Amino acid sequence: MTSTESGQRFLEDVAPLIETGIRAVLQAPDPHSEGLYDAMRYATFSGGKRLRPLLVLAGARAVGGSVAAALPGAVAIELIHTYSLIHDDLPAMDNDDFRRGRPTLHRAKGEAMAILAGDGLLTLAFEVLAQATAAGVPPERVVQAVAVLSRAAGPQGMVAGQAADIDGDAPFTMEQLQYLHGKKTAALFEAAASLGPILCAADPDAVDLLAQFGRSFGLGYQIVDDLEDQDKDAGRMSYPVLAGVAGAVENARRYFDQASAIALRFPQGDALAVLADMVRSRLDSPVH
Amino acid sequence: MTSTESGQRFLEDVAPLIETGIRAVLQAPDPHSEGLYDAMRYATFSGGKRLRPLLVLAGARAVGGSVAAALPGAVAIELIHTYSLIHDDLPAMDNDDFRRGRPTLHRAKGEAMAILAGDGLLTLAFEVLAQATAAGVPPERVVQAVAVLSRAAGPQGMVAGQAADIDGDAPFTMEQLQYLHGKKTAALFEAAASLGPILCAADPDAVDLLAQFGRSFGLGYQIVDDLEDQDKDAGRMSYPVLAGVAGAVENARRYFDQASAIALRFPQGDALAVLADMVRSRLDSPVH
Repeated sequence: MTSTESGQRFLEDVAPLIETGIRAVLQAPDPHSEGLYDAMRYATFSGGKRLRPLLVLAGARAVGGSVAAALPGAVAIELIHTYSLIHDDLPAMDNDDFRRGRPTLHRAKGEAMAILAGDGLLTLAFEVLAQATAAGVPPERVVQAVAVLSRAAGPQGMVAGQAADIDGDAPFTMEQLQYLHGKKTAALFEAAASLGPILCAADPDAVDLLAQFGRSFGLGYQIVDDLEDQDKDAGRMSYPVLAGVAGAVENARRYFDQASAIALRFPQGDALAVLADMVRSRLDSPVH
Repeated sequence: MTSTESGQRFLEDVAPLIETGIRAVLQAPDPHSEGLYDAMRYATFSGGKRLRPLLVLAGARAVGGSVAAALPGAVAIELIHTYSLIHDDLPAMDNDDFRRGRPTLHRAKGEAMAILAGDGLLTLAFEVLAQATAAGVPPERVVQAVAVLSRAAGPQGMVAGQAADIDGDAPFTMEQLQYLHGKKTAALFEAAASLGPILCAADPDAVDLLAQFGRSFGLGYQIVDDLEDQDKDAGRMSYPVLAGVAGAVENARRYFDQASAIALRFPQGDALAVLADMVRSRLDSPVH
């Protein structure tokens, strides 16, 4: 079995664990809250690729850690990613009626419920993470995971990126764009790649290195996303608007090269490398 | 000095520490995010009484714990309370234009910024709490604090209450009302009263007892709030609509009696008792 095959096998093996883990925390504890939990499930089970939770578990594998220890981090980060999409779609934000071919949550269940479901998912993420001690994770590592995830998702990370994005019409500079991409997207990928190693009690050097993997991965990912959304958001702050399509592709490749080089430094970095190649390959699609 | 005087003295002494603690975590880390942090500060410094953070610190005092250990919990819970007010005021929710005599955040800074500022404050609360290890709190107690706060604020607590509230027009039953009050208000007060003891590494019995204090306090508080808002929300699910004004007052008094009785069991429960008396005294105001 090649390294790519073993990495793919791992990702296929853990994918159902992620689904089960997410479903387990989205069961209403009482009939009164069924509507709220239904809304949270609607948004969370909508055909997403679970890229961030897969990175968490692939990161745990890279350091020889257990999937069970990292799973709370995988579930938590997907809840946070989902909340961010719900709030991002709201009328006052991007005002999107559809996501992945289905009505967005506020179109399906009303705007108030969409706001609350987002708030609920964000808060639940930290409850899930706190439960990692039950999987044998040392408390100091759980605290570190809470610190890393909250910092990446909060006003020093993703929320700052969203706030910059709502003012994000051209003209803009490369410095502003890098800030936007770093905060809006790369911060959460950085957290994703480091949460597994943190929860598996890996040594700090490995955690730092995998955070760098996540950062490069995330910056590459956002350029791919910008390239694929070019027609949709004409004039909006995006990489190809500033650097041209060829420049954007070249820079994305460089980010994925950096990520892959880091993955290769880990004997079991195969699953991380597969994920990086998976997103990178979207650069070769006929769209550009 | 009477017990009431010493309790009041304590609350006066710690009040500026709460303000300083909140202000310290609401400084923008870079110029790009100044607008976001400005929005978060606008909502957080708006004349609130800091009742929840005062309960955190009064709870710490009750168990002989240090203010420094509990302060991250006090700051975190006020950030969460503030986020809940911001999102609650949004047009899709209560659609309030004013709060404490000033324009609500979405009126002042726009709806998108209000959504993001709320998200930012909620996420930041967990980052602040995770930093309690720097104040010498054992990691396992920080994990417990994260678990308690997230559960109280999330879809099993406050968010469930908000979701029940958006469907909360009459007719309704006492069972539905108790659910609403328990989730929307009492859950966070319960967390407030137990966070101090948790962070100060108090024994589990004291933590449980002070959680009960917070629950009784919170249920009493919500009845007082309902009584004061009677004219504003006619027909909406509220205690006086169901139990009459006299019945509501009587029940609120019973809750505060329960809370005060618990406070008296702690040699340094004076500040908790003062806070309970403070809210209870609003029942004697000429409004009802």
